[in-house]
Amino acid sequence: MNNVIALKSYAADRWLAEGEGAELVSAIDGATVALMPGVADVREMIDHARRVGGPALRAMTFRQRGEMLKAAAAAISERKAELYALSSFTGATKGDSAFDIEGGIGTFFVYASKAKTLPDAHFMLEGGRETLSKGDFLGQHVLAPLIGVAVHINAYNFPVWGMLEKLAPTLLAGMPAIIKPATFGSYLTEAAFRIMIESGALPTGSVQLLLGDTSDLLDLLDGQDSVAFTGSAATANRLKTHPNIVKNTVRFAAEQDSLNASILGMDAGPGTPEFDLYVKEVAREMTQKAGQKCTAIRRALVPTSMLDSVQNALISRLGNATIGDPRDETTRLGALAGIPQRADVIANLGKLTAEAEVVFGGEVPELHGNLAKGAFFEPTLLRCENPDAAEAVHSIEAFGPVCTLMPYRDADDAIMLAKKGKGSLALSIFSHDRGVTVDLVKGVSTFHGRVMIVDRDNAEHSTGHGAAMPHLQHGGPGRAGGGAELGGTIGMLPYMQRSAIQGSEALISAVAES
Amino acid sequence: MNNVIALKSYAADRWLAEGEGAELVSAIDGATVALMPGVADVREMIDHARRVGGPALRAMTFRQRGEMLKAAAAAISERKAELYALSSFTGATKGDSAFDIEGGIGTFFVYASKAKTLPDAHFMLEGGRETLSKGDFLGQHVLAPLIGVAVHINAYNFPVWGMLEKLAPTLLAGMPAIIKPATFGSYLTEAAFRIMIESGALPTGSVQLLLGDTSDLLDLLDGQDSVAFTGSAATANRLKTHPNIVKNTVRFAAEQDSLNASILGMDAGPGTPEFDLYVKEVAREMTQKAGQKCTAIRRALVPTSMLDSVQNALISRLGNATIGDPRDETTRLGALAGIPQRADVIANLGKLTAEAEVVFGGEVPELHGNLAKGAFFEPTLLRCENPDAAEAVHSIEAFGPVCTLMPYRDADDAIMLAKKGKGSLALSIFSHDRGVTVDLVKGVSTFHGRVMIVDRDNAEHSTGHGAAMPHLQHGGPGRAGGGAELGGTIGMLPYMQRSAIQGSEALISAVAES
Repeated sequence: MNNVIALKSYAADRWLAEGEGAELVSAIDGATVALMPGVADVREMIDHARRVGGPALRAMTFRQRGEMLKAAAAAISERKAELYALSSFTGATKGDSAFDIEGGIGTFFVYASKAKTLPDAHFMLEGGRETLSKGDFLGQHVLAPLIGVAVHINAYNFPVWGMLEKLAPTLLAGMPAIIKPATFGSYLTEAAFRIMIESGALPTGSVQLLLGDTSDLLDLLDGQDSVAFTGSAATANRLKTHPNIVKNTVRFAAEQDSLNASILGMDAGPGTPEFDLYVKEVAREMTQKAGQKCTAIRRALVPTSMLDSVQNALISRLGNATIGDPRDETTRLGALAGIPQRADVIANLGKLTAEAEVVFGGEVPELHGNLAKGAFFEPTLLRCENPDAAEAVHSIEAFGPVCTLMPYRDADDAIMLAKKGKGSLALSIFSHDRGVTVDLVKGVSTFHGRVMIVDRDNAEHSTGHGAAMPHLQHGGPGRAGGGAELGGTIGMLPYMQRSAIQGSEALISAVAES
Repeated sequence: MNNVIALKSYAADRWLAEGEGAELVSAIDGATVALMPGVADVREMIDHARRVGGPALRAMTFRQRGEMLKAAAAAISERKAELYALSSFTGATKGDSAFDIEGGIGTFFVYASKAKTLPDAHFMLEGGRETLSKGDFLGQHVLAPLIGVAVHINAYNFPVWGMLEKLAPTLLAGMPAIIKPATFGSYLTEAAFRIMIESGALPTGSVQLLLGDTSDLLDLLDGQDSVAFTGSAATANRLKTHPNIVKNTVRFAAEQDSLNASILGMDAGPGTPEFDLYVKEVAREMTQKAGQKCTAIRRALVPTSMLDSVQNALISRLGNATIGDPRDETTRLGALAGIPQRADVIANLGKLTAEAEVVFGGEVPELHGNLAKGAFFEPTLLRCENPDAAEAVHSIEAFGPVCTLMPYRDADDAIMLAKKGKGSLALSIFSHDRGVTVDLVKGVSTFHGRVMIVDRDNAEHSTGHGAAMPHLQHGGPGRAGGGAELGGTIGMLPYMQRSAIQGSEALISAVAES
């Protein structure tokens, strides 16, 4: 690539201070793609969001905000070819790019559609009227947008979806956002953001983009602001105990590490449709986005008697996954986001091999020419013989095309192993036995934000283990951080305050319709 | 009192280790009421809740748990005379005791009644089915109780209600609890707890009582446990940044400081019914429970032109509030919980007087005989002339019969002043002008967990500024801690995990009905 992009932050309606920051390189061949900008004035950005963006959004009704999301999504969709071109540099294949780009656009459209179920007014109602006494004195829970700013701290793996999945519920709720993308791949985030700004669909001050150093951002927030973070548990813990976040009870939600499991049912032996569906899904989860999905299957739990069969079937499938230039249509497995990310994967793999054996992959592939400088890694299958006693395979997330196969004895054992993840974003079950499936769901649900059940009848309509749906909660308890993004109106709650209104029916109605 | 009560913790179904702890004295005259027990084994308590109490509760359906709450409430109600007798020693008048005791019992009954709207099954459904694709593959949010233990850390001001308001949603959700009451008044909590145990209404292990030292309790919790804390912001901040709470993403909810405001409308001048209702409510909030309610009116916001009139009317009313032995039926204002609490009130009052003038009260009253050793304090009205520039009156909570009167210029100014509390539990508006009221509600709602509007038409049915209703959210943003207790099913959410179930309709139905 000849044209190096000079990235800019977007603060208080101005594109800011280009090109004095770090170089961003292509995940494919190490060529320079973009230069980070200089430091933005975060105090000005926060002030602008509070004074200009918030009031503009709050002046709109939920329905109007829905129309706004639709217009922004349509604008991005129209110019999405620009995004696909940039997405390759992140190491993404065309399919990976679609997951990121179309996934993000689709999230906006779904939220636009959800807006039609909300009032053409400024309060969202929760539940019905509550009778509090014998006379005309009732209660009603209402929700309104916080009057501060939403700070979104995003991960590197989904430069477009990561921005849009947080933004959709925030904007529909009526809060302005400051978006802080990860540095890796931020040229793609900036491009998608720029399209939204140029579309004119969003009111002034409603979105700002902060690239690079966050400066003293967290010191400036108060109880009407919120922070939504996606990334490592270590960083999440540091941010959520930041003295000002604690002192001012700043809303803080985290989406962090997750050792998602997928369970093959006892009934789903070789030869059953569920067996084949399972193998296909695990292989896809390992290779899609080069395994850089927080929802990807990290632990494949199979009945002891089927361990070898699944291993062989997976190895056969993974062996057919071509690794290489993601712009090549035959490529199934693109590059990781960068060389540092690959080094992390290798380091974590080293910890996993204390408990599990590499039965496929595990190395940097030999690629030629400029691709030798890319961040490629082989799809890597581990096998853990004694998962009951293991710890690392349940706690260390190698954020790449890495999955550990492990045997379970019976349903209770499968549940116990799933729980050893200490809270995950998603779990899937492949079984055609309803009784066993219901028992598994009951056993694991409180450890998982989402549970997907696939069988021969619904597989063709399944949205996939790793796909966070805008309609459904994205977030899990414990190790996964305890957040609850998306899920329709559920995802709007972190950006709104609930208030119980008490008074006469006519007064409550007047408030509700205001 | 001659019989000193030897208090006991209740751990793993045994009453434990009496009487080697501190003396608890009567708030009325300093006489010894009870002795605290020795240290309980918190590890055993947590283990018992997880192994015995949780499974027993989870085996019940929501409807069955509702019946359980009803039986427990009936048992307490039947023996409530025992509680009224003890309640006096906390300084409570008969009316204050009713607020605590009947309020607690009523909360259980309301939750028992809410249970009838929930499934006779083990999952609570949230929202309807979500269409995710064209075929038979849908989504459904379900909620199930966490499989750990709920730790309730309660404040000293409501020994009975404080326990029962946290316990009702917890038990209905299906989680076992360890109750850690404040030391002051814990003899009353223990008595109410004992009645529940003796009633046999609650399954083994579902509730335990931890008096005194919590030992290393917080170090033993994980992502399936939750902590609900009521008390000071300083303690809340220390607990929520406890390394193990952070590391394991233990659910943590706080109910802390709150500078609740009540606004007299511009339309509600002397001679209007709203004026009289306002004066009556402010005076009641100052004297009820000796002002020791987290929801009490701390800031009385009145139009500048009415400042003197309200002050005079309040002083006249407060002058009639007899201070003295709470067992005497003519007493309107009982004692604070203890001498240390009174010392805190006096210290905080000292800070408030830097910005506001004491126009009534402000002293320890001269009482005779043993009452001279009691923790009495005069109802104390402050007047702050320049609240826009003030800080202390909006941030320092003198947790006693203390309220600051302050003028506002117009609706915007009233909203600005209300917000200077930086987040409160409750705000009330006394006005008969609907337009102004709706504007005020819109202006303040995101800073308040509950907003009550009173006028001449609904006043006789009003449940009161300071009464947290089981049907309505109790909790506010920012300074108030960000919690959301009560509110029917809303209050159950801290004790449940939401999971999005994806699969075919028949499968989702089977899960929902399981």
